[in-house]
Amino acid sequence: MNGLSCGTSNIVGVRFAVYPMADNFVEIIKGALKEVDTSKVWVQTDDITTCVRGRSEHVFDVAKAVFIQAAKTGTHVVFNGTFSVGCPGDSEGDTYMSEDDIRLNEEASRQESVEAATHFALYPMDNPDYMQVIADQVKTAEKHGTFTKGVHYASRLDGTANEIFASLEEMFVDASKTKERAHVTMTATISANSPSTKDN
Amino acid sequence: MNGLSCGTSNIVGVRFAVYPMADNFVEIIKGALKEVDTSKVWVQTDDITTCVRGRSEHVFDVAKAVFIQAAKTGTHVVFNGTFSVGCPGDSEGDTYMSEDDIRLNEEASRQESVEAATHFALYPMDNPDYMQVIADQVKTAEKHGTFTKGVHYASRLDGTANEIFASLEEMFVDASKTKERAHVTMTATISANSPSTKDN
Repeated sequence: MNGLSCGTSNIVGVRFAVYPMADNFVEIIKGALKEVDTSKVWVQTDDITTCVRGRSEHVFDVAKAVFIQAAKTGTHVVFNGTFSVGCPGDSEGDTYMSEDDIRLNEEASRQESVEAATHFALYPMDNPDYMQVIADQVKTAEKHGTFTKGVHYASRLDGTANEIFASLEEMFVDASKTKERAHVTMTATISANSPSTKDN
Repeated sequence: MNGLSCGTSNIVGVRFAVYPMADNFVEIIKGALKEVDTSKVWVQTDDITTCVRGRSEHVFDVAKAVFIQAAKTGTHVVFNGTFSVGCPGDSEGDTYMSEDDIRLNEEASRQESVEAATHFALYPMDNPDYMQVIADQVKTAEKHGTFTKGVHYASRLDGTANEIFASLEEMFVDASKTKERAHVTMTATISANSPSTKDN
């Protein structure tokens, strides 16, 4: 798919964290990060979350890769993040927008088949038609076969991590094109290897 | 403070999870839940998140209590959730809105002094003035002494869990009053006992 950055200068970002439910969580997070090539994105980590910014292709590529590399350990791991585009407070000043669209981690991510369950929510800001924008994007997940059902305040997706991130990226990018310089955010809670029984 | 429910029938909800970064995460979560009185809210848990709905006072009371009871174990624990009010898809049909405003867990929460670091973001939907609504609410956290700084796509708060939840609740409730039947959501990532150096 074409990303948001083709023909525009819209910088995309995600603020996220990956939570391995294990005593050796530091090791799992550091191990995952070592496997991921972040050279096409701006990255800043603090004690709460990590922020990744750049072209939409690379932001989704890196977010997916960090989750998959952590989840492939078999530990119960959850990715929790908010994607954002068009935030009036964001700056286009950082470089990285001139990177090409070749994803650096796609090949490694494709090697792994991690089953994941997701709750996501789309927030198209300053848009009276936002409920329709959300409903339209849910149809994309239905088309992909990842949509399971609506829940209070979110929608549920099931599938492999590769399938789920493909749906999330397409919905986010398409929602961002529904308005000139739209400000859209999307939350996603993506869980792998949970000991709980799947509710789908 | 007066909650949202005083004089209105607006149901508030939060969809959240608490992540203890430890091998015994199930035990920590179950132990925390056992300490929390949820009799004044509607609760539904699946394999990804827990949804709590009811009067704003009780939704914040329960969310805070679950986090504090899990974090008081000393384990690195993160709360990640999205609060919501006025969602056009939500129903007022559930009971619980007729509960009184006495918080069932406040006394136990006040006993614990858990230091926490937070990123939060407010999303007032369908509101051309949403950036001003956000800026106004950040002033509340400044007044409380919990505001640390803005970061990309979020704001940072530091303080005890009791202080942070008080700021979050006041900002959320006040933002919800800026418009008739406003639909407002708020994400919060609240971290305790992190081994990382605080970035404040």
